[in-house]
Amino acid sequence: MMMVYSPIYMEFAIREAAKGHYLSRPNPSVGAVVVENFTKIVGWGHSQAYGQDHAEVVALKMARDHAQGAALYVTLEPCCHYGKTPPCTKVIIDAGIKTVYIAMLDPNPLVSGKGVEELKKHGIKVAVGYMAEEVQKQLEYYLHFVNKNRPFVIMKNAISIDGKIAASNGESKWITNEKARQDGRLLRTEVSAIITGIGTVLADDPMLNIREGDLEVLETTADKSTIKSPLRVVLDPHLKTPLDYQIVKTAKTYPTIIVASNTHIDNENKVEQLQNMGVEIVLLPSDTNGIDLEALLSFLAERKITAVLVECGAKLSSSFLKAKLVDKIYYYVSPKILGGNYSVYSHLDVGSIDNAIELETTSIKDIEGDIRIEMYVKKNN
Amino acid sequence: MMMVYSPIYMEFAIREAAKGHYLSRPNPSVGAVVVENFTKIVGWGHSQAYGQDHAEVVALKMARDHAQGAALYVTLEPCCHYGKTPPCTKVIIDAGIKTVYIAMLDPNPLVSGKGVEELKKHGIKVAVGYMAEEVQKQLEYYLHFVNKNRPFVIMKNAISIDGKIAASNGESKWITNEKARQDGRLLRTEVSAIITGIGTVLADDPMLNIREGDLEVLETTADKSTIKSPLRVVLDPHLKTPLDYQIVKTAKTYPTIIVASNTHIDNENKVEQLQNMGVEIVLLPSDTNGIDLEALLSFLAERKITAVLVECGAKLSSSFLKAKLVDKIYYYVSPKILGGNYSVYSHLDVGSIDNAIELETTSIKDIEGDIRIEMYVKKNN
Repeated sequence: MMMVYSPIYMEFAIREAAKGHYLSRPNPSVGAVVVENFTKIVGWGHSQAYGQDHAEVVALKMARDHAQGAALYVTLEPCCHYGKTPPCTKVIIDAGIKTVYIAMLDPNPLVSGKGVEELKKHGIKVAVGYMAEEVQKQLEYYLHFVNKNRPFVIMKNAISIDGKIAASNGESKWITNEKARQDGRLLRTEVSAIITGIGTVLADDPMLNIREGDLEVLETTADKSTIKSPLRVVLDPHLKTPLDYQIVKTAKTYPTIIVASNTHIDNENKVEQLQNMGVEIVLLPSDTNGIDLEALLSFLAERKITAVLVECGAKLSSSFLKAKLVDKIYYYVSPKILGGNYSVYSHLDVGSIDNAIELETTSIKDIEGDIRIEMYVKKNN
Repeated sequence: MMMVYSPIYMEFAIREAAKGHYLSRPNPSVGAVVVENFTKIVGWGHSQAYGQDHAEVVALKMARDHAQGAALYVTLEPCCHYGKTPPCTKVIIDAGIKTVYIAMLDPNPLVSGKGVEELKKHGIKVAVGYMAEEVQKQLEYYLHFVNKNRPFVIMKNAISIDGKIAASNGESKWITNEKARQDGRLLRTEVSAIITGIGTVLADDPMLNIREGDLEVLETTADKSTIKSPLRVVLDPHLKTPLDYQIVKTAKTYPTIIVASNTHIDNENKVEQLQNMGVEIVLLPSDTNGIDLEALLSFLAERKITAVLVECGAKLSSSFLKAKLVDKIYYYVSPKILGGNYSVYSHLDVGSIDNAIELETTSIKDIEGDIRIEMYVKKNN
């Protein structure tokens, strides 16, 4: 059997993968296509919900007998271990697939090359490394999570053009326009948890959920009905969150964790009241700057949270940068000047230009006069 | 004689006008085209150096006898008064032009409709209002100068993405990349004067001139050899500028004014030394915030300076904004985070969001990873 690769099938598989974007978390959304005689697509699919069929299985089920002797295109190395589902390699072998084209290896140590080996051992021809850049981008959060064993951290800030998040009278509602704020809220669909600080909770009494109305304007090929509001995580060392605030009152609808300091907690009564209202209380180490953010991300990684969105004020934003834990920043900039002292990262000071936190701008978008700048952190000494 | 307008000739005239961009100051650069029998361009031209031929005269000289019975396209209403040159209306009438198409009236009270009247009085058919928006943009500085009787004020700021102009150790060299700084220096070609403060002079010992090397990358259809370094204006209430600084040492090559306070000046010896080195000393009112900026712009308007570039630190930038005298801002933003307290407008505080200085973004340009944002001031209460 000749091996003849065609990018059109891998592109098809990548488009399939996009459809499972909100569905498969914490697993990556993979796409798979079964091709008979180089020309005929006889099956396709993407990752289903966590614990259900992987992309390969969906595609092979659709292909039925046509899988015999066919080629499989898949965006990530098939798994070879028993997890929530049987190994995909077994399903591929049993289906009689003769050739497998893989965009990229899965860095997950349980797979990482072993999936390819298993297929080869059964006489299947395997080739790896097609459109890997696209897939790396598509699986950015998952790959970061697996490689660094902590969630990918996205930070959102809304500022005036001179870098302020509030006027000197404390007003911060609103600096950016409604459309920009909606765009910012839609970032919540990208993550499994939102992190905020007690300062923001006390100031704004926010809901931090995904609003149905917002979803109407979300552009995606994925099934929107699979989008769930992320876990809400409030960093509140001294358990100051009032019981009658939105975040507590809605905790039975939207999963909510309040992270308190393991050394400052002394109000057992408050703990119990919050727990009764559906809030999960987690204790983590803290110092004068607040909760230990590395410990926080390790805790969230254990919960299989692959990406988080940080939505907070100047203090916690500064802390995340100081802890070198920010991977990507979405900056919503409104062309107005406020002056005053409420700088976006007012608790941060790198000292010298050489020591600046260096970012790379990857997109700039006009949102009805406001500007959205997407940036990756490239250097944070 | 029928009147049949064609936009291709007005476009031609606008392109001609662009060629005189650096040449005609403080006069606007106008373009003119003579068209015979609706179809044949027999003459064209743009404004020459101040005091020399206007565009209409250049075009009509080229057209010679062909101007008889022809149409004239001109981007601004022809002048009808004796200034440095005879009135263009007279030249047009004498040449036998039968039809004149004018993009827009000249708001200069010496002309303003009177040019049109004069032509009509001599039996010439005149129509006004073609591609006026393009011409308004092209003559933006001149129109502002005539309408408001003060120069158009462009401010340039180079900042980190969090709105800082220096790290906390005071370093400001360099936040933006070389290409962005060059782009910023080229703004000097747009103006007849640069304004800076004594703080910037003492900190950076700048030249504030136009560099020949920079001009190589300047994109323009105008004759670059007509570009002159602008007048340098230093706001120095107490005459602190050291005699051995660049700005003083080169004052015989590049015209330089030091503006001191009329109430603080007491060092006659320093005045004389500076004057001997070629610096012009001008005294203007001042208060604790520095030189009165309205008085400064009135003084520069008298000198027929139609546009100025403000290149300075946080204090003077803030003062110009507080005085509501900024028309346009060029923001050079580098995607790096500095933190600390050196905010771009640190001496400004609008108090509330409603009271923000509102800007309108008109262009966003990537300069090798840095971002140039061009903004107009829309509201400054």
